Amino acid sequence: MAVRAAVAGASGYAGGELLRLLLAHPEVEIGALTGHSNAGQRLGALQPHLLPLADRVLAETTPEALAGHDVVFLALPHGQSAAVAEQLGPDVLVVDMGADFRLREAADWETFYGSAHAGTWPYGLPELPGARAALEGSKRIAVPGCYPTAVSLALFPAYAAGLAGPEAVIVAASGTSGAGKAPKPHLLGSEVMGSMSPYGVGGGHRHTPEMIQNLSAVAGQRISVSFTPTLAPMPRGILATCSASAVAGVTAESVRAAYEKAYADEPFVRLLPGGQWPATASVYGSNAVQVQVAYDAAVGRIIAISAIDNLTKGTAGGAVQSMNIALGLDETTGLSTIGVAP
Amino acid sequence: MAVRAAVAGASGYAGGELLRLLLAHPEVEIGALTGHSNAGQRLGALQPHLLPLADRVLAETTPEALAGHDVVFLALPHGQSAAVAEQLGPDVLVVDMGADFRLREAADWETFYGSAHAGTWPYGLPELPGARAALEGSKRIAVPGCYPTAVSLALFPAYAAGLAGPEAVIVAASGTSGAGKAPKPHLLGSEVMGSMSPYGVGGGHRHTPEMIQNLSAVAGQRISVSFTPTLAPMPRGILATCSASAVAGVTAESVRAAYEKAYADEPFVRLLPGGQWPATASVYGSNAVQVQVAYDAAVGRIIAISAIDNLTKGTAGGAVQSMNIALGLDETTGLSTIGVAP
Amino acid sequence: MAVRAAVAGASGYAGGELLRLLLAHPEVEIGALTGHSNAGQRLGALQPHLLPLADRVLAETTPEALAGHDVVFLALPHGQSAAVAEQLGPDVLVVDMGADFRLREAADWETFYGSAHAGTWPYGLPELPGARAALEGSKRIAVPGCYPTAVSLALFPAYAAGLAGPEAVIVAASGTSGAGKAPKPHLLGSEVMGSMSPYGVGGGHRHTPEMIQNLSAVAGQRISVSFTPTLAPMPRGILATCSASAVAGVTAESVRAAYEKAYADEPFVRLLPGGQWPATASVYGSNAVQVQVAYDAAVGRIIAISAIDNLTKGTAGGAVQSMNIALGLDETTGLSTIGVAP
Amino acid sequence: MAVRAAVAGASGYAGGELLRLLLAHPEVEIGALTGHSNAGQRLGALQPHLLPLADRVLAETTPEALAGHDVVFLALPHGQSAAVAEQLGPDVLVVDMGADFRLREAADWETFYGSAHAGTWPYGLPELPGARAALEGSKRIAVPGCYPTAVSLALFPAYAAGLAGPEAVIVAASGTSGAGKAPKPHLLGSEVMGSMSPYGVGGGHRHTPEMIQNLSAVAGQRISVSFTPTLAPMPRGILATCSASAVAGVTAESVRAAYEKAYADEPFVRLLPGGQWPATASVYGSNAVQVQVAYDAAVGRIIAISAIDNLTKGTAGGAVQSMNIALGLDETTGLSTIGVAP
Repeated sequence: MAVRAAVAGASGYAGGELLRLLLAHPEVEIGALTGHSNAGQRLGALQPHLLPLADRVLAETTPEALAGHDVVFLALPHGQSAAVAEQLGPDVLVVDMGADFRLREAADWETFYGSAHAGTWPYGLPELPGARAALEGSKRIAVPGCYPTAVSLALFPAYAAGLAGPEAVIVAASGTSGAGKAPKPHLLGSEVMGSMSPYGVGGGHRHTPEMIQNLSAVAGQRISVSFTPTLAPMPRGILATCSASAVAGVTAESVRAAYEKAYADEPFVRLLPGGQWPATASVYGSNAVQVQVAYDAAVGRIIAISAIDNLTKGTAGGAVQSMNIALGLDETTGLSTIGVAP
Repeated sequence: MAVRAAVAGASGYAGGELLRLLLAHPEVEIGALTGHSNAGQRLGALQPHLLPLADRVLAETTPEALAGHDVVFLALPHGQSAAVAEQLGPDVLVVDMGADFRLREAADWETFYGSAHAGTWPYGLPELPGARAALEGSKRIAVPGCYPTAVSLALFPAYAAGLAGPEAVIVAASGTSGAGKAPKPHLLGSEVMGSMSPYGVGGGHRHTPEMIQNLSAVAGQRISVSFTPTLAPMPRGILATCSASAVAGVTAESVRAAYEKAYADEPFVRLLPGGQWPATASVYGSNAVQVQVAYDAAVGRIIAISAIDNLTKGTAGGAVQSMNIALGLDETTGLSTIGVAP
Repeated sequence: MAVRAAVAGASGYAGGELLRLLLAHPEVEIGALTGHSNAGQRLGALQPHLLPLADRVLAETTPEALAGHDVVFLALPHGQSAAVAEQLGPDVLVVDMGADFRLREAADWETFYGSAHAGTWPYGLPELPGARAALEGSKRIAVPGCYPTAVSLALFPAYAAGLAGPEAVIVAASGTSGAGKAPKPHLLGSEVMGSMSPYGVGGGHRHTPEMIQNLSAVAGQRISVSFTPTLAPMPRGILATCSASAVAGVTAESVRAAYEKAYADEPFVRLLPGGQWPATASVYGSNAVQVQVAYDAAVGRIIAISAIDNLTKGTAGGAVQSMNIALGLDETTGLSTIGVAP
Repeated sequence: MAVRAAVAGASGYAGGELLRLLLAHPEVEIGALTGHSNAGQRLGALQPHLLPLADRVLAETTPEALAGHDVVFLALPHGQSAAVAEQLGPDVLVVDMGADFRLREAADWETFYGSAHAGTWPYGLPELPGARAALEGSKRIAVPGCYPTAVSLALFPAYAAGLAGPEAVIVAASGTSGAGKAPKPHLLGSEVMGSMSPYGVGGGHRHTPEMIQNLSAVAGQRISVSFTPTLAPMPRGILATCSASAVAGVTAESVRAAYEKAYADEPFVRLLPGGQWPATASVYGSNAVQVQVAYDAAVGRIIAISAIDNLTKGTAGGAVQSMNIALGLDETTGLSTIGVAP
């Protein structure tokens, strides 16, 4: 019997990617699609790549529209999920693709988002130690941010194995879809093609506390994160270049072994063979993560690099993967590790 | 029982796209993968986006390697398929993704390819009148060229309905993957990003006789084709802008009606609602075709535009669709009409 | 003594490109810079590539701000130039980069722009027959549209030599800067990268009557134009692919000779050697035009292709070139034929 | 009297960019253009954007061809400059755009390039302390690498002011032209568009010792550098994200003050106003450097970011700037701080 799913916020990039994946999911039947400013419009005009849904019309995001589903995905602007979620019953699986329920510390939320903290839900990054167990049977899931997904998967094995010092330095490049579909001058094609530029430098990015939270939990100590995001001239993809000082005694072999152990049984993470490095094109449109790690003896640092598709593994794919776990389905159902390349 | 498929030429763009599709095909089991200059290499080094096949090693393209399969796909340079095909038995389904068996007239082949004509096989563009019947049960399939696929699907309804005059003018833009994976200076990223340029102007492109063949067969008269291909700064996609004089009495309504009739039951072709125009991004990685048509009364011309993914519907997707028909499977098995966008 | 120039509309793409060129112009001193919604802002925040002007502040576009200059450039939205121009004295050279004064027929203006026609000024495409003479000493200049610039330069030699029939078919690809800086969803980088799409199909583009006007004047008869513009994934550049039936007796040699004659002495137009085709990258940031032409005997058509930078030769460079002529300066002053490539 | 300049290696990207700049240089007359595999070809076929030189033919790179010039630029593969340079007289200004004479330590050269060290020439990054004086009147110039240019200009003010600790962490994104014009599969447009990928991770990049050399000289102590270069989907540009621990007592104000002091009088370096960040598009085709710096108090790190055009300030523009100094010309002659944007 099919899982009936509603999507609130079906006109944006996260919602569109989710629908692309749900259309291919053998256990899911797509129910209500809602929006706000686009309510009443045909999906074919908003998401012209989703041909099978072209004639569906967006409803307004109301409790009535979202009622009667097994799963409700919330692809809403940050800060809007809590109000919608509280109107959904405790038996409905609610998967929040926004930031509202990711952070454990209310103070972090208030500092970075400026409103009251709504709470903390089980965290939808199954590869992290303990995360799967928390997701099984859960009726609430907080999908991680795209950067924290890429960064946590690049670095956590080093912290889990006790190989890395507490100061991580991260520079990540993201495709423009991570900035959303609301038109802003600096996101125009004319501006982004041919250009790399940083933003949120110096600790200001909202994803920083989430990275600290993830890495600190694994390390068992407070990890500090220097995070610089950059905007790259491509629609999708995140390449996260992460490094930290190695603790005494680390070798290239011990680093490699830690990553091999961490990812030996992970269906979506591929630790690349030595000498091959991740490329965002290789995971385009897929839920795969490519990871590589090196130990630079000359400077005593571990350098770990991951590539993901920010919309798939970084948002909608991670949401579906976590939903699968919560519902007791095979974790890989409806998801692919095959990128669309070249 | 699974259909066992071999792919000769698995390291190129056509072969890689075919493998991407076959991995998702529920009835196919991937058998031998062969190459020539890359024989002996891991597929993970050549096609890093195909994670499930990363540890497969390419064999040399020999009759022995290709023996024992139900289907053999040939993704070889033009002119090399015939020699391989003749060593495969008559009971094996051979799907040639090269040009060798597309043309009916030996003179056309000789003019554009300069060697002896190998023959003509059933043509793998099922949407053309009569094509499906010829594919059913066939053991040999000639997959169309990417440009002829886009152009034929844009224009044939106008000719089938007798609405268009015999002189077609076509300008098409293609992504760079259409030019293949062999490194040439003008295909470097440094050269193609930020640039549009034509090539093969003035009738020189090898796909021209194939377009003439397709449109003439539908029209029941010789159609002349002025074809200008251009290289666009994107990896995938073809946008074909096609026009022809309208015959007397044509109206916007009669043109629209002809296209609605032609595509009423086609699973992969979407005639867009009035006012919406095709975009290659909308069909990225999918087997879908977006078509729109207009009648410009001021100049008396029918303008028909199509968008396809050159590697999917234009090559490997068309190959799988035709294979499905030949094998008696549902035509849409393993194929998607959902693009990867944005 | 320096020519003192004001720019109304300095925050947009046309205004920014004009300033880039004027900064390099040895005879020009940049005076007032005005805007409307951006008045009061530093230019460094709006046009971060114009470092020498970074600390200039935009004034409101008023007669007072524009007074006291030798030249006033209007880089305003279509339909707004006339009101500003009439407040500038008859001795000031006014160069309108908008559409207001391009068209000769009031009916064309009213059909495509929907307001009252403001008049017709000397047309700033010096390469057209008779255009230079009309610009010399003129105090008013209408800068052509970017598409009409590319198309007229591709096709007029064929019409001037009487070689082409009266029905031209044109498909042109433009970079996204041609669509301006106002943020709209379909112009987001996420949407345009990786995508080709048409717009204004079937005669609807406002540049069509301007092409008809130019070509008809040269041909001495009414030329009909089927024009399809497409949006290409690049910031700058237009590639115009133009064709028309050849009249009886045309040969490849007679076509080539007509183009050689037309462009023998033009400083900005380069008829490429046989076998080499225009590329927009080659004219990036320059005032150069690359042209190539072929005669396709199989279909009896002349195919002429041009590449320009839409912002330079297609807008701001054409404006400066025309200003030079009007002021009696050497036509090439401050302008370059050297593209920024790769 | 004009400076007569020869360019050895005129067919590559560095050579082409140099010619673009020399064409605009009022004191330079372009003399011999040489190549090796392309000797005998017209420059118009190799560098189609350099219209004024289209009919020049490349000579073979021989002492005879290069004789009789005031300046000889060497744009040759690494390791080939020394042999050519030793055949040029001591009175000719030789500007090496390769790596041969950049490094002071023979051991560094041998480790990273594997051949005998040719020597050390005055270093063409005039903004570094002491560099201008060494260039004045010099007859030999070693042009810096593109990454060391971007990184040194981002970080040296922090070291000059004694604000940063000895372990720098650098992640830089480069456009594809930095990888040169020799066609390799991973540099195809099909591969690079839509993709970010790292290379030379873990200390392996040849530019690392050059960065260490520059920063250590300024700091007066050995600076270690963790350097990760990444390939970005754009033809030009480097964005260098650099950080180091701040020493005790550093504040945002003291960091800002150090950078304001360092760049108060530099004609090509723009320290951006607070809140504005560098973008490679803003320096496209120009010799400008955009720099911004922040102090992240939460992690105690200084984050300095620079944007350059790798071919201009990073190679050919830096060469011309240094030539100007060596010849006693105004340092900015023929160079621009105006980018080509959007």
